[in-house]
Amino acid sequence: MSARVLVVDDIPANVKLLEAKLGAEYFDVITATNGIDALAICERGEADIVLLDVMMPGMNGFEVCRRLKHSATTAHIPVVIVTALDQPSDRLKGLDAGADDFLTKPIDDTALFARVRSLVRLKSVTDELRQRALASRQLGIADPLAAAAAETGLNGRVLLIEDRPLIAERLTQALSAFHSIETETDAQAALARAAEGDFEIVLVSLDLQNYDGLRLCSQLRSLERTRNLSVLLLGEAEDKSRVLRGLEIGAHDFLVRPIDRNELLARARTLVRRKRFAERLRDSVQSSMEMAVMDQLTGLHNRRYLDSRLSALFDESALRARALSLLVLDVDRFKVVNDSWGHDAGDEVLREFADRIRACTRGIDLVARMGGEEIVVVLPDTALEAARAVAERIRERVEGEAFQIQRGQRAITVTVSIGVASRRAGDAGPVEMMKRADEAVYRAKAAGRNRVIVASAA
Amino acid sequence: MSARVLVVDDIPANVKLLEAKLGAEYFDVITATNGIDALAICERGEADIVLLDVMMPGMNGFEVCRRLKHSATTAHIPVVIVTALDQPSDRLKGLDAGADDFLTKPIDDTALFARVRSLVRLKSVTDELRQRALASRQLGIADPLAAAAAETGLNGRVLLIEDRPLIAERLTQALSAFHSIETETDAQAALARAAEGDFEIVLVSLDLQNYDGLRLCSQLRSLERTRNLSVLLLGEAEDKSRVLRGLEIGAHDFLVRPIDRNELLARARTLVRRKRFAERLRDSVQSSMEMAVMDQLTGLHNRRYLDSRLSALFDESALRARALSLLVLDVDRFKVVNDSWGHDAGDEVLREFADRIRACTRGIDLVARMGGEEIVVVLPDTALEAARAVAERIRERVEGEAFQIQRGQRAITVTVSIGVASRRAGDAGPVEMMKRADEAVYRAKAAGRNRVIVASAA
Repeated sequence: MSARVLVVDDIPANVKLLEAKLGAEYFDVITATNGIDALAICERGEADIVLLDVMMPGMNGFEVCRRLKHSATTAHIPVVIVTALDQPSDRLKGLDAGADDFLTKPIDDTALFARVRSLVRLKSVTDELRQRALASRQLGIADPLAAAAAETGLNGRVLLIEDRPLIAERLTQALSAFHSIETETDAQAALARAAEGDFEIVLVSLDLQNYDGLRLCSQLRSLERTRNLSVLLLGEAEDKSRVLRGLEIGAHDFLVRPIDRNELLARARTLVRRKRFAERLRDSVQSSMEMAVMDQLTGLHNRRYLDSRLSALFDESALRARALSLLVLDVDRFKVVNDSWGHDAGDEVLREFADRIRACTRGIDLVARMGGEEIVVVLPDTALEAARAVAERIRERVEGEAFQIQRGQRAITVTVSIGVASRRAGDAGPVEMMKRADEAVYRAKAAGRNRVIVASAA
Repeated sequence: MSARVLVVDDIPANVKLLEAKLGAEYFDVITATNGIDALAICERGEADIVLLDVMMPGMNGFEVCRRLKHSATTAHIPVVIVTALDQPSDRLKGLDAGADDFLTKPIDDTALFARVRSLVRLKSVTDELRQRALASRQLGIADPLAAAAAETGLNGRVLLIEDRPLIAERLTQALSAFHSIETETDAQAALARAAEGDFEIVLVSLDLQNYDGLRLCSQLRSLERTRNLSVLLLGEAEDKSRVLRGLEIGAHDFLVRPIDRNELLARARTLVRRKRFAERLRDSVQSSMEMAVMDQLTGLHNRRYLDSRLSALFDESALRARALSLLVLDVDRFKVVNDSWGHDAGDEVLREFADRIRACTRGIDLVARMGGEEIVVVLPDTALEAARAVAERIRERVEGEAFQIQRGQRAITVTVSIGVASRRAGDAGPVEMMKRADEAVYRAKAAGRNRVIVASAA
């Protein structure tokens, strides 16, 4: 998969070398010789991944990385830190700064391409999500990106798959200071636990005695219920080709033994952070969409949802020759509440009114606020007489106890008029039924309010 | 990238062979020996890609493919048809049935893995989108999947990048019966046109005289403005390795010369269909989210949007010491309209009321329906006196011409009361300003309606 790779290094020869290597693999290479330029390129959204040299005059690589990862505009761009020496302290500084990975000079081509490809592939999926979430920010719904960039990556839920007790214990000890960790020794059982549990990352040993760790990794990345988990492979240093193979299959990162405690912690934290970033984006898009069919004040469904569902419910009841009823509820003299006690009191009444209706209806009933003080309840599989009983129960429950307003400072009596109608065999669609219920509620108002009027069955 | 590959063949030896090959590459393999079982597995969402043998007793591969592609539940799953002989007619039948690609027996391993990987990678991106779109269907907002499955893939907008006039002309002739096609001979110019034009697919010749077609493919797949285009490579048969390399880079499909006219048409159509599928999902998620902040009846913003934006507008005006004003507008005696002429007439009045407000406000003003007959207008950079003038203009425009109701059968006079307030230096937040405007509109009502009342500036 092609991508725009930003190479940042103050030494022109290093830039040229990486540019040539990546260009030959058909990556699109952009270059910068200092941190300021690199940050500007990323802010403009022109890079898909950053290869960042540590030793630069002015702003060093760690600082550049930290700034990228703390900005909502750039936090999603994978950063690979390139260090001159294989110094564990540099690795850690990089990972602490939020880097997604690192490479040591002289750069091994296979490792370079494997990491870049793996990070680019993972990014292409989150990019789609991010575009949707960005749209929700532009719409003013929420700003998931800022929240996601602030994520610490601590208190992760980790599943460790390792069948050697001593090693498992050592890893558990290291991780449990910052995360909650469970261990599983059997590969098949691990797969089931990963699918059912509430884990965020899975650590997979490539040296299991009775199972191929790569196979397990492949299954984790394939199964519907586990494919969103982050996978961290643990392998032997001499087993490099299998580890890189793991990245191709879809593992998110790896560690080679002997495992450095601090590096383990840093990488686990990065994975938890990345996973939560994606989840947050997913949640944000999901909740934006839920908002589209919800009434904000009462938490009931809105008119848009009723409009889109009522026809289907009507057609289904007609097809299966089942009953279908509908209540139109209108709070009596609601304008007086608003005028006497203010709009806030009116809102309190509507919220409480919605709660009382909810208490009298089932999960399969559709309750929607039509706007103002009017609420509609659709009752599937319910004939006219039963619907009348539901309406009467609601009416009593509303009248029966005073409504608290002004945060409990005052209580007022509220009543409701309700019109009831059922689907008739001759109805072409739900509009006729709705109209009968509307007329019934109008008659209830005219007859003195606080009553249930039923439109005749045929 | 790992994935669940469904292998469908009635001959056990064939199944075993493919299972072994794919398993060795760490794909998760599921098998079926007939079409019915294969359809059931796909319906249950257990496969990421299907390798489908043509010759099977009962339901043959073409029919299985057709059914998969016509169901909204399974249309997104890539299908690769496996034919016994390299028969162009079989290829075409497969592509006509909606297959994404085909392989001929004996299966070449490199081609097999390249195609499967490429299709799986593309699917992983659409899967994220599809999950969001599925959620919108569950919410009852829309059913983009059914619409997407019904897409024909005709009338595509195609950009052909080929610098040999005769070849370009032949391809254009073939495609122009079903699509609109433009040709570009220069690679850099082509990139610019692809970014700026409204194309759906790009055909890239790998045999350009002055440019590497693979490089062009990589750039198309990397650049923000072209990465959602579908790319079809055209290469020489002996250049197989470059063609497969193109798939790795991110090309969606390829054709080898001499190009069979019908195969070209079939593949172009498949790509157009797939591209539109993804676009439709994107649009659907986007519009679901837009709905969350829109008032359905009037097309104005809703209260949720106002709530989320007003604080920011207030803070900004305070920070920059700029004016900020707010109008609260309430239709006079709106209840009488509903009671006398029905709810539909009330809706007509509200829609027309919204239109007239829109005509008197600027793009930067925020106009939101609060529910019922109340609308709020926020005016950035507008001091109290200017806001009063806007309010007066709206009041006149509402009173000035009668409102059509009952679809133009009747016209009624409508008036509006408006309260105006501006941010004061002492205001801690927008609530105080809003309250002053609310009180002003209340006073306007009390003073006889159809007037503008301005809350004092300090």
